[in-house]
Amino acid sequence: MSVSPLSPAELEAALRAIGAERYHNRHPFHRALHDGKLNKGQVQAWALNRYYYQARIPAKDATLLARLPTAELRREWRRRIEDHDGDTPDTGGIARWLRLTDGLGLNREYVESLEGLLPGTHFAVDAYVHFVGEKTILEAIASSLTELFSPTIISERVAGMLRNYDFITEETLAYFTPRLTQAPRDSDFALAYVKEHARTVEQQNAVLNALKFKCGVLWSMLDALDYAYVTPGNIPPGAFRPA
Amino acid sequence: MSVSPLSPAELEAALRAIGAERYHNRHPFHRALHDGKLNKGQVQAWALNRYYYQARIPAKDATLLARLPTAELRREWRRRIEDHDGDTPDTGGIARWLRLTDGLGLNREYVESLEGLLPGTHFAVDAYVHFVGEKTILEAIASSLTELFSPTIISERVAGMLRNYDFITEETLAYFTPRLTQAPRDSDFALAYVKEHARTVEQQNAVLNALKFKCGVLWSMLDALDYAYVTPGNIPPGAFRPA
Repeated sequence: MSVSPLSPAELEAALRAIGAERYHNRHPFHRALHDGKLNKGQVQAWALNRYYYQARIPAKDATLLARLPTAELRREWRRRIEDHDGDTPDTGGIARWLRLTDGLGLNREYVESLEGLLPGTHFAVDAYVHFVGEKTILEAIASSLTELFSPTIISERVAGMLRNYDFITEETLAYFTPRLTQAPRDSDFALAYVKEHARTVEQQNAVLNALKFKCGVLWSMLDALDYAYVTPGNIPPGAFRPA
Repeated sequence: MSVSPLSPAELEAALRAIGAERYHNRHPFHRALHDGKLNKGQVQAWALNRYYYQARIPAKDATLLARLPTAELRREWRRRIEDHDGDTPDTGGIARWLRLTDGLGLNREYVESLEGLLPGTHFAVDAYVHFVGEKTILEAIASSLTELFSPTIISERVAGMLRNYDFITEETLAYFTPRLTQAPRDSDFALAYVKEHARTVEQQNAVLNALKFKCGVLWSMLDALDYAYVTPGNIPPGAFRPA
């Protein structure tokens, strides 16, 4: 805890330092995923669980949208919902994620039912939705800043998965291509907002903690996957069991 | 999913069957805890994380209390808060849990700060608090029914821990003794309520799913502990690190 406020540039550096330590590209499960160390059932489990995150992102963004005070801010934030939900059936990020689960041979109805979800995934994603409803708008916007770090992980992931898995194609990874432009656009806005509005020590600490919280959401989703699907015998009752 | 409603006795049997499959006494971390397979740092991690569950139980019960329609129901439910918060300083379940973390050599300020908590613990416990605020009163009451199964696990735990760990004493396990009478009293009430009010197939399925949800809360807390503290190298950034 610092005693005098950081400059906007120092705040950005502190946010980036959190990403360098806590972003989920450093998680052993992600490294295994990219390096081709997982079998198809484990990749299925990842896609199935990550589906819930994708599916709840519009609820997260709508929860925040409902709290934003100006049309300008709401227009900016609305774009995120459009990106995920699309303009017509079978467009948008969620639909593209389902092409990945389809391509991995998962039944779409089963994926959408959430029946096989790990409880840890459920609780982590729901915590994110609740966070943006309960915390300040500044903290809610700051919690989206993991997108600062996502272009790198996406590039690594797409290249690594195409190289290492014969059951993965460019078509099944279609989700990620638009994210390479959407995420920087979104995080540019959120970072500028946070640098402008987090002026006091308290606000800056809240912003840093919001990013730590969000890193914890993503990290704990991988903890749950790594625990359940890498060591035999750990799949919790009721969760997806690879064929 | 059944097509005609269960009798109250059949509903109770179905609830007990969920406990037999999903209650956390079956989790590998719990078995290791009771069997003396953990070191002191691992037992510390368990007590530190479980503290957050204890600390939030009054918030969970107050959230439900605020929704109960009659003084009779509220009096019944209020007792749970009294049990956990006590009547004077240093009484009640939370204070007794802190005697356990004290006895394990953990700094009380650090425990109460929640700084070293696993994100998975945080999200699971918060999911429980949100559940009782968002679901029907019937589902909220049903989610407490894991207490049907707790006397068995408590007896096993106290006997096993006293036998197996020289750093555990009867005084540090003081939390558990009153629970042996409180939990059956509470679960008798909740079970009778659920058997009386869950009459339709939809209500009964909702009740069964509420108990599955709650088993998932407890189970995923142990998943997070087992992942982070049993296999070396898995403690997430920022979480408690045993000395």
